[in-house]
Amino acid sequence: MLRVPAGQGVDLGALSPAALPAGPADKAAGQAATARLAGPLAELQERLYAASTTGDRRRVLLVLQGMDTSGKGGTVKHVIGLLNPSGCRITAFKAPTAEERGHPFLWRIAKALPRPGEIGIFDRSQYEDVLIARVRELVPRSRLDRRYGEINRFEESLAEDGVTVLKVFLHISPEEQLRRLLKRLDTPEKRWKFDPGDIEERARWSAYQEAYALALERCSTAAAPWYVVPADRKWYRNWAVSTLLLEHLEDIDPRYPEPGFDVEACRARLLAS
Amino acid sequence: MLRVPAGQGVDLGALSPAALPAGPADKAAGQAATARLAGPLAELQERLYAASTTGDRRRVLLVLQGMDTSGKGGTVKHVIGLLNPSGCRITAFKAPTAEERGHPFLWRIAKALPRPGEIGIFDRSQYEDVLIARVRELVPRSRLDRRYGEINRFEESLAEDGVTVLKVFLHISPEEQLRRLLKRLDTPEKRWKFDPGDIEERARWSAYQEAYALALERCSTAAAPWYVVPADRKWYRNWAVSTLLLEHLEDIDPRYPEPGFDVEACRARLLAS
Repeated sequence: MLRVPAGQGVDLGALSPAALPAGPADKAAGQAATARLAGPLAELQERLYAASTTGDRRRVLLVLQGMDTSGKGGTVKHVIGLLNPSGCRITAFKAPTAEERGHPFLWRIAKALPRPGEIGIFDRSQYEDVLIARVRELVPRSRLDRRYGEINRFEESLAEDGVTVLKVFLHISPEEQLRRLLKRLDTPEKRWKFDPGDIEERARWSAYQEAYALALERCSTAAAPWYVVPADRKWYRNWAVSTLLLEHLEDIDPRYPEPGFDVEACRARLLAS
Repeated sequence: MLRVPAGQGVDLGALSPAALPAGPADKAAGQAATARLAGPLAELQERLYAASTTGDRRRVLLVLQGMDTSGKGGTVKHVIGLLNPSGCRITAFKAPTAEERGHPFLWRIAKALPRPGEIGIFDRSQYEDVLIARVRELVPRSRLDRRYGEINRFEESLAEDGVTVLKVFLHISPEEQLRRLLKRLDTPEKRWKFDPGDIEERARWSAYQEAYALALERCSTAAAPWYVVPADRKWYRNWAVSTLLLEHLEDIDPRYPEPGFDVEACRARLLAS
């Protein structure tokens, strides 16, 4: 996975969605490596949650973005499988409702944020408002252009409040998307996932890649960096996102709180109860 | 597990929390039997979600109640481990906030309900308002007594709207609770889970058992039955709750929707894209 340097652009066309830029070299090794992350991830998550019970406000927000079929939902399922789901707050953002459209675009995002001690996961996010909104020209260009700065200020305020913001672009190729869309069509029990509208979005592939490149360039900040994860291979994508999450939890290094009570006295009272 | 007959009482003292009233006879068999539920559960959950995308409003609400350390959190973790977490809506209800106290007691419950296609899981619930509220005399008796009927009408309206309400009382013994509380105290990385207030709640054991018996008697209805699951053995509890969930999903029998588009035409458009 590539961390997009703050203030710099990224040439998505030069990054292969099938690349294995770091880590395990094949599927078996990748799955084994990912399985080994489960223990450390679960322990760090428990420590994060435990610390919040005595006032530590730190928490994590993992933002997943990518083209249709890039594996956002699959990543959520996989990552949560390594964690305690009770401490996770998952939100899948769809097209805004009438109520949501009546508010500033960050309103629904703010409502879905993780609370102290939690790991929040966004399947789509505030970035839809500079992606589909840009490609489909849903808002005037001047308003759209202001949104990048609004997002940066919003994410900076989150970071100041103890949120580790981790943004991942799942980078797939148009060929892989075609394979996945055809599979949805050709498998009866997957057909419900197919939306004919996906064909029209696919036709705008290069416009979306440009919109992504712009979002990554303008919104990869020190407070909330963007990472590009090659996602044509699901096992690599799972390993990469799990590894990023683990590294960020290790940086947080949450600690179990000291007990605010007398352990021996409590044991005596318990045994007498 | 025992289904509490509608309109009848249940003698909790006569039900052993260590009993194995049905199903596998030992831990190894229980864990194997539970693992075999994962496939059918995941498929039914996917069908439930798929059906909601074309207007099926059906959904499931699993309510977990029980004394401290009875395993509500552990059950959530285990059950979600068998499901796709993206389709689950988990809520752990704590002591009501100032805002929640300013509303009727069902207000925060209604806000946390699963949406069509989802499986909601409540770790504690509306029943706290007739359990701790009764034992601790938090509200006048007349107001408390009205709440059972309010809960029944609320749950009936949920059932009419397509919610399968499944309420589980995790039945543990005071001896097992003592073991679990001591383990929290004696294990440094579990100590943060210990709350000295638990000792005071434990001292009211029989008052809580009476309050539970009353809630089970008054609120086990045809629309929303109560089940008593012996919970001294975690493997049995996990098997029993997973089995109950599977049975209720089988009753719902959700179906993949028929595609609302021409599959062949879409395939041709895709291949041309």
